[in-house]
Amino acid sequence: MSQSGHIPVRGFDTAEYQRRTEAVQQLMAEEDMQAMLLTTEPEVRYFSGFHSQFWESPTRPWFLVVPATGKPIAVIPGIGVAGMAATWLDDIRSWPAPNPGDDGISLLTGTLREQAGDNGRIGVPLGLESQLRMPAGDFLELWQRLAGIEMVDACPLLRRLRYVKSEAEIDKIRYVCHLVSRSFEALPGRVAIGMSEREVCRALQMDILERGADNTPFLVGASGPGGYDNIIMGPGDRLLHDGDVMIIDTGATYDGYFCDFDRNYAFGEPDEAVRRAHEVAWHATEAGFATARPGNTTSDVCAAMWAVLEEGGALGNDIGRMGHGLGMQLTEWPSNRPGDDTPLEPGVVLTLEPGMEFAPGKQMVHEENIVIREHGAEWLSHRAPLEMPVIE
Amino acid sequence: MSQSGHIPVRGFDTAEYQRRTEAVQQLMAEEDMQAMLLTTEPEVRYFSGFHSQFWESPTRPWFLVVPATGKPIAVIPGIGVAGMAATWLDDIRSWPAPNPGDDGISLLTGTLREQAGDNGRIGVPLGLESQLRMPAGDFLELWQRLAGIEMVDACPLLRRLRYVKSEAEIDKIRYVCHLVSRSFEALPGRVAIGMSEREVCRALQMDILERGADNTPFLVGASGPGGYDNIIMGPGDRLLHDGDVMIIDTGATYDGYFCDFDRNYAFGEPDEAVRRAHEVAWHATEAGFATARPGNTTSDVCAAMWAVLEEGGALGNDIGRMGHGLGMQLTEWPSNRPGDDTPLEPGVVLTLEPGMEFAPGKQMVHEENIVIREHGAEWLSHRAPLEMPVIE
Repeated sequence: MSQSGHIPVRGFDTAEYQRRTEAVQQLMAEEDMQAMLLTTEPEVRYFSGFHSQFWESPTRPWFLVVPATGKPIAVIPGIGVAGMAATWLDDIRSWPAPNPGDDGISLLTGTLREQAGDNGRIGVPLGLESQLRMPAGDFLELWQRLAGIEMVDACPLLRRLRYVKSEAEIDKIRYVCHLVSRSFEALPGRVAIGMSEREVCRALQMDILERGADNTPFLVGASGPGGYDNIIMGPGDRLLHDGDVMIIDTGATYDGYFCDFDRNYAFGEPDEAVRRAHEVAWHATEAGFATARPGNTTSDVCAAMWAVLEEGGALGNDIGRMGHGLGMQLTEWPSNRPGDDTPLEPGVVLTLEPGMEFAPGKQMVHEENIVIREHGAEWLSHRAPLEMPVIE
Repeated sequence: MSQSGHIPVRGFDTAEYQRRTEAVQQLMAEEDMQAMLLTTEPEVRYFSGFHSQFWESPTRPWFLVVPATGKPIAVIPGIGVAGMAATWLDDIRSWPAPNPGDDGISLLTGTLREQAGDNGRIGVPLGLESQLRMPAGDFLELWQRLAGIEMVDACPLLRRLRYVKSEAEIDKIRYVCHLVSRSFEALPGRVAIGMSEREVCRALQMDILERGADNTPFLVGASGPGGYDNIIMGPGDRLLHDGDVMIIDTGATYDGYFCDFDRNYAFGEPDEAVRRAHEVAWHATEAGFATARPGNTTSDVCAAMWAVLEEGGALGNDIGRMGHGLGMQLTEWPSNRPGDDTPLEPGVVLTLEPGMEFAPGKQMVHEENIVIREHGAEWLSHRAPLEMPVIE
C-alpha cells in the first residue's frame, strides 16, 4: 500500500513527450495514417505538454496535428501562442480567434493537406468515449475541403497508447490519491450529524485543497436513511440524521492527473443491513484486486467483483460497469464490464468500483484506485476500512 | 454597484424552465423545426434543470430532445435516471451505458423520428462556440439513420435565447461576483512578496470557497517584472519579487453560474509605466461601461474601450476581443469585438475586458462583469480600484 507523501515534480521531461509521439507514430505507420487530428484538452496535453485552464472557455477551438514523423504541429488561437511556445513544440500556427468567418479551418485544412496530400489517411477520434471539441459545422466543412483524404477512427491507437501509464504519470495519480485518502480518513473528526450534505462535502473539499491538490472538479455526495439511491446528483441541502448513510465520491487533480474513488460513512451506528452491505462491497473490491493482474481482463475483474456482490445479496447495478481507466480524465477507457475483455498489462491504472442495490432504492458503491504490476495489482488509494466509518 | 450578500435560492422554479422551453419552441416554429437535439451540460441543464457534476466523466453521452410542443425528452444513460426524474421532465428514456455496440443511438434515432417524421427538420448546434458532446462517429451514423430529415444549425436560436438572462440567473451571477470581489479585496492582507504564483492563487481560491462559492474551475495567475506576457497559462512556481505585476483572472461558480473577472496587483510600488497602464485600462473599462446600453452593440463597447487604450499608448491586443457573454459558461456568445455588432438588450450579462500590450512583452488586462439595464449598465463585480493595489 502506498502512503507516499513525496510531491511529484510538475510536468514531464521532453523525453516523455518524444516517447509518446514516436509510439503513436509507429501505430499510425501500421495503419498507413499520415496525420492525426486532435481537439480536446487531454489529447493536446498528452502530446504537447500544453497545460492551461483556458480550455474552460468553450469559445475557441484548438488543434494539434501529429504528423507521420517529427514533432506535433499546433494550430491554435493567437491567445495561446506564448503558452504553446513554452512547450517542446516548434511549429506553432495561429489565427486571431474568435473569427466567425473562418475560425482556424483554412489554416487547419492547409496543415492537414501538407501531411496527407491528395488522397492520404487522417486519423480523428470518432469512437466511443471520444468527442470533437470544435463546432460540428466546421468539422463537416473541414471534411468537404479535405475531399480525397480518408478519415479513419484514431480512438483505437490513442486508447492503446494512453492505457499504459509511465511511472511519472503513476506518481502524480498516486500523490493525489494519497492526499484524498488522508482527507477521507480525517473527515469523521471534522463533520457531525446535523450538517448538510453540502457542508460535509465542503469540509472535505477544503481539506483536500489544503493538503495540496490543485482542484476538485468532481466531488459528489449523496445520502439517505439506511442508504442512498444515486451516486451522481449531490451534494444537496439535505441534513444528515442518525441512521443515514452517505457516499462521497471524488475526482481531485494534481498537475492534470485525477484520482477517482469514494468512501461510505454511517451517521450514527449503521444497522445490520448497511453494515453487511459495506462488508460485501469491501470483499468485492478485494476480489477485484486479486484478479487485477496481467493474464486477466477487465471483464474478469468485473466478474470477480460481481460474484461476491451477488453472493452477498445484490439486487442489481445500474451504473453499467464496475470501474474504468483513470489518468488525465476522471474516467478513461476501458471499462470493467462483461464483454469489454481488455487484457490487463503492467502500468495500467484502474478504478475498482463494485456497486449494488442491496435493498430496494438503497445502493452501496465502493471504489479504489490501483495500478497493475507484473505480478499483481498495487493500491494507489489507501485501502478503505472493512468496517464502515461512523460519524457522530 | 451591487454588494449583495443575499444568498440566492438554488435551482429555478418550474415556470422558468417552462418559459425557456416555450420560448425556444416559438423560435423553432418560425424555422419550421420539429425538434432540437442537445448534448452538452449547459444546454441540457438550461432546459431540464438537470445539474450534476457527473458530466466530468466523458464516458457516456447524454441527449435532450426538445420537441415542437410539450416538455423536453431525456435520452440518457441508466445511471442518470434517478437524477433526471427529480427534474420537471416526464419522458425519460434510458439505456444501459456504456454500450459499445449501441451507445444510445438507436434510442435517440427513434425519439427524433417520432418528432420529425420522414422528412422534417431537426436543429443541432453546429455553429461557432458550439460542440457536440458525443462521439463524432455516432453523430455521423445518427445522420445516416435519419436519412430524409434535414439537419439545421440550432445555434442562432439558442444564442438568442440564452443571451438575455432572467433576474433569477442574474442573482446567481451577481452573488458569485460579490464573493470573488470580496476575496480579491482581501487578498493583499493574505499574501506577500516571496510567495509563488501558485501560493497566491491558492490563498485566493481557499478564500473564495470559504465565502461560499461552489468551485473555482478557472483561476489563472501570471506575473512578471514590470508586467506579464500572457493571461492563460499560470499559476506556476515563479516567486513574486519587488517590482512584479501579477494578474489573477477567475471564473468561480455558484449553482452552475459563473463570474469571470480579474484583478491586477503590484508587488512593491509599481513603476510609472505600470501605474499608467493600470489607469488607462481602468478608464477603458469606464468607457465600455458608459457605452454598454440598449441602442449600442458589442462592437460599440469594444470600440469605446479600444479608443481609450489606443490613446493611452496600446501597442496591440492578442486576445481577439474585449469581453463576452457570461452565465452558465465562463465565456458565452457574443464577443465584444469589431464586426460582432450584437445589439445590447436589458438582461444581457457581459464581461468588459479591455487589454493591451503597453510595452513589448508586457500586458495589462482588466475585466469586470456587468448586466445591461433599460437605461445603462449595472456592475455585478465590485469596481476595481483606479489605483493599483500593492502587495508588500
